[in-house]
This record gives sequence, structure tokens and C-alpha cells, in this order.
Amino acid sequence: MPKSLPPSQLIPRLLAGDRLALSRAISRVEDGGDNARELLAGVFPHTGRGHLIGITGAPGTGKSTLVTGLVQAYRAAGLTVAVLAVDPTSPFTGGALLGDRVRMSKLSGDAGVFVRSMATRGSLGGLAGATADALLLLDAAGYERILIETVGVGQAEVEIAGTAHTTVVVEAPGLGDEVQAIKAGVLEIADIFVVNKADRPGVERTVGALELMLHMADGTPRQLFHHGQLLEVAAAPLEDESDGWQVQVFKTVAASGGGIPEVMAEIERHRLWLAENGRLAARERLRMARSVEQIVQAELLRRLRAALPADSLAELVEEVAARSLDPYAAAEQILDRMG
Amino acid sequence: MPKSLPPSQLIPRLLAGDRLALSRAISRVEDGGDNARELLAGVFPHTGRGHLIGITGAPGTGKSTLVTGLVQAYRAAGLTVAVLAVDPTSPFTGGALLGDRVRMSKLSGDAGVFVRSMATRGSLGGLAGATADALLLLDAAGYERILIETVGVGQAEVEIAGTAHTTVVVEAPGLGDEVQAIKAGVLEIADIFVVNKADRPGVERTVGALELMLHMADGTPRQLFHHGQLLEVAAAPLEDESDGWQVQVFKTVAASGGGIPEVMAEIERHRLWLAENGRLAARERLRMARSVEQIVQAELLRRLRAALPADSLAELVEEVAARSLDPYAAAEQILDRMG
Repeated sequence: MPKSLPPSQLIPRLLAGDRLALSRAISRVEDGGDNARELLAGVFPHTGRGHLIGITGAPGTGKSTLVTGLVQAYRAAGLTVAVLAVDPTSPFTGGALLGDRVRMSKLSGDAGVFVRSMATRGSLGGLAGATADALLLLDAAGYERILIETVGVGQAEVEIAGTAHTTVVVEAPGLGDEVQAIKAGVLEIADIFVVNKADRPGVERTVGALELMLHMADGTPRQLFHHGQLLEVAAAPLEDESDGWQVQVFKTVAASGGGIPEVMAEIERHRLWLAENGRLAARERLRMARSVEQIVQAELLRRLRAALPADSLAELVEEVAARSLDPYAAAEQILDRMG
Repeated sequence: MPKSLPPSQLIPRLLAGDRLALSRAISRVEDGGDNARELLAGVFPHTGRGHLIGITGAPGTGKSTLVTGLVQAYRAAGLTVAVLAVDPTSPFTGGALLGDRVRMSKLSGDAGVFVRSMATRGSLGGLAGATADALLLLDAAGYERILIETVGVGQAEVEIAGTAHTTVVVEAPGLGDEVQAIKAGVLEIADIFVVNKADRPGVERTVGALELMLHMADGTPRQLFHHGQLLEVAAAPLEDESDGWQVQVFKTVAASGGGIPEVMAEIERHRLWLAENGRLAARERLRMARSVEQIVQAELLRRLRAALPADSLAELVEEVAARSLDPYAAAEQILDRMG
């Protein structure tokens, strides 16, 4: 397949399940080139079928092993699975690629599995935008379950995982004195908690801490993260989400496969629960509102850069650094010049 | 002092070192009310004196204890210190406040110390914007060293800590199989590494892993995080930062004070190094460019919301969720209507 295949030829191949076409398409949305927009418009009507499963947690919890186990379980159940590993890591550490290699060796040769990592920051809408676009492509390619694995416990990672239909938060015993979840607002996004490495000492303490937190938060509406909140009002609120779904804590030993079938069953139970009473539709509206918002923001930034020559910006910044102009006044000048 | 004190009266009190005035002013920039803009413009000419020290690391590394130790060390050296603890945590977990209480009991009664936590997401420019504004206020109030402590190892936290003049990244032994630093690009922002809890097993392994990473990254230019990058070209690049400063790894047992004086000395050594050859000025330009950029972005978002009625946004989102309009086309329509 030539590298420069136009979207009109790439799209039908991708929709037919051609893995190379899918891989090329993801690279193009990562690069944010001219074809990206056309590609996404072409596949978009074919999306909305795959179930998106976000998996997040602190480093050291064994997320990757858990994800590999879930892929195997889903394959055994006859479903096709894609994995998108999102790692906003400095490029030279190469963490994402290493993880992929380990996984690929376990999963390679199975045409029903597709694994890809995203480690870019350079794309138009940032990492979150590139991830959303890649998810659309995986969805259009027909994968029935799409796992989004994010590394880290920060807000950005939690937000990306929080865009999924079902979000699994992974903990492990002995990662420090504090329960990791408390530190990143993951309570707000977790549909399922997993305590992995459950054969280690301290597992009951970690499970207990999570259950206590869940108990404390009981009745607090579950929220999808909403950073910019531009379109918040536009997406129907998820007001009925607080009743009906009880977040539970599962124990796994992913390295030996222990507990994985139960987690898979819980994800499926959540999927069916979402499908009832229009909850999935409400969540889709919020997901799409976020997506549109990210694109709008990225485009505004692009226009701003295009409208203002670099040297007049440099002059303004110089004045601010010299304390002769305050940052808000400088921002006003920039916005004025933009029109 | 009345709660509604106008900026014209609040500003001179703050500049004179009135703690209550400072506290009120921070609350106002957190809330993002009408007075916030005037307050910041009023204090801005008096900023640029305090040295900003970012301290970040994963939960469980003992950052708060380290920060408390550094405050005590600076006080013993006769310098005034402010601490801004930034915790983008869900409000109901109350993590930030708890940490403050513990600290306050150790540091209270000392007029040369000011501790404040930021846990808001609601302010105009988001958490990063509110943090930048609060730093200006602390700086204007005359604190000579300002510690910014961020919780978590995600991109947002790392970015906030990375806005400081000197950034300290804290690790601890036994927090998992992976070195935490690898996972959040902290190598790019660290001026000093601290391995805290150095009396625990595995400390040499953690120190060794960090030193190996530093060795591998040797010669890679140190970067401040730059998310939007609108004004990147406007701020003079930090091209000469890669030579001259060697990032080193320090061991501490913060709970007993062990190693703290050495870390303080290293921060001061970095401060002097920055002051040489215009490096501090270059870093200030980049900091201010970031600050202006955040304000511009927040204002654009505000305008967008003001220009578009919620129901027409809801209609667009509905069409996207129904797959009859793709997210990029919806974004185009929004931008068109905005003018």
C-alpha cells in the first residue's frame, strides 16, 4: 500500500478491516496533516458501535498486564478488541513503545486484536484530540471492544480515560501511604475499581480504603471530566447516573489471570446498564460535546498564531517580563489585534 | 477588615505584608470575580522578587513533609517563605485541606511563613491560571521564597510545578516497579531530584535508576512545559540551558530532617546559577508568555460561550451524537457563528 494513499481509497480499506490501512490512518490523525480531517469525516458515520473502556491508574499498578488479560478474555468470548495505550511521556523515554513490544509478543498473530500506542503531543488538538480521533478510527474499523489505557494519575490522563463509556480505575497494594485514587479525582470517573496484585501484602487495606471512599461518596453524581465546559450546557446532564450503578471493588492478580473474568463480566454488566434508559445516549452526547470543544479550542489557537506575527508577540512578552505591562493587559492587546 | 474591601484599599495592605489582606486577595483570584483583574494589575509592578520553587512527585513520596522541612530550613536562614499547595483533587476528598492542617500545626505562629492550598477548578483560567495569579500575590506580598507543591505525577501537575524558577522532583523507594519520573516527563522539568524516605529499602536502586536516566538524557536541553505554545516563539528560547547545570540526585529523610539543608543549598545554588548570564530573565520571559497565553485562551472560551446560545449548541451536539454531523464540521459551524 503506498504511503500517500488518498482518504478516498484509505477509508474503504479501513472500514473493511484492513489493519495496515487502520495503522496508516492513525498515523495521519496523529500527524494532524491535511488528510486527517477528510479521513475522520469519511469514517465518522460508521462510528458509535464499539464499546470504549478506559483503564487508568498509577504507574506500578500493573495496568498493562491487566489490559493484556482483558484482551485475552474478550478474545476467548469471541469479541474483537483494540487497545490504545496513551502515554504522554517524554519521547526519549520510549515507555509506550516498550510496553507495546511486551504485549505484542503475547497477542501477536491474532487478527482480532489491534494494539497501538499514542505518545504524541504534537497533534492539532493535543494528546486528548489525537486520542479521540484514533478512537473514531478503531471504532470505524469494527473493533467491538476498545480499551484505552492511560499511564499516570494526573488530570490529563484521568480525563482521557474518563471519556470512555466504561472507566476502570486500577490500584495496587503498597504503592505508598495514600490511596492513589484520592489524588486525582478518579472517584468521579470510576465505574469499576480493580485492586491488582491482590496477592501482595496490604491488599485488604487498599480494598478497605477504596470501599470507604465509595461509601463516603455514595449518592454523589458520577461526572465525566469537563475541562473547558464550553458545551457542558449543550450536552444533556447525566443527572440520573447517581442512582442505579454501584461502583464495586474487584481484586485481580493479572499476572496469573486471577479475577480477570469477573472484571470483564462487570464491564459487560456496565455496558448493558448504560444501554438501558438512554444513559449511553446521554454519555455519547457529553463525549461528542467534549470532542467538538477540543477541536474549537485547537482551531482558535491556530488562528491566533496565524493572526499575530512572532515579533510583536515577543515585544509584548518582553514588556510583561519587565513588569511594565501586566499579563491581563497583554492578553487584551493580543485579543484586540486578532479582531 | 470588611470582606468587600475594594482593590484600591486591599492592594496597599497586601504590599505592606498584611496576611489577612493576602488571604482575601487569593480568594478573589480563585473566585475570578470582577476585582481579580484590578487586584492583579495593581500588584503586578511589585512582583518578580520572590524565588519560585516547584516541588512535584507522586503521591506517597512524602512531598509535604519535605516542603515543611524546607520551610523550617529557610526560616532558620532568616528568609520568609510562602507555600502554595496545588491539588487538582475532587473537592469532597478534602486532601489539600487536610495536608494544610497538619502543616499549619508545625508552622503556625511564625509571621514569616504563609501556607495556602489551591484546590479549585472553577477559576477563569483553570487551576494553572489561578495558581499563577496566586503566585503573583504571594510574590507582591514580599515572600522571599515561594514553594509550589503539586500533588500527582500527571501532565497538569508537572506543568504547574514546571512554571517555577527551580523545580524539585521528589521520588521515594518502593513506590512500584517503575521509576515514577519516567511516567510524566518530569526529566524535562527537574532541576533537582530528591529521593525522600531514603531510610527505606531499595533507596540505592531508585537513586541508581534516576542517575541512569539523567546520564541517558545528558545534553538534552531542559524544557519548560509548553502546552499551547502560542507564544513559544515570542519568548526567547532557553538554548543555553543544557550546558552548565548538572541535575543531581539528593537523598533525604524528611520526617527526621535528614538531607534537607543540602537540598536547600542546592536550590540556592540553582538560583544563583540562573541569575548568571541572563538565564533567569529568559526563564521569566517564558513564564510570562505562558501566563499571557493562558489568559488569552480563557478569554476566548468566555467569548465563545457568550456568542452562542446554549440551545443551538445542544442542537449541534445532538447531530454529532446521531452521527449526522462530524465533530470537525460542528466545530467549523461554531467558529463561523462566532464571527
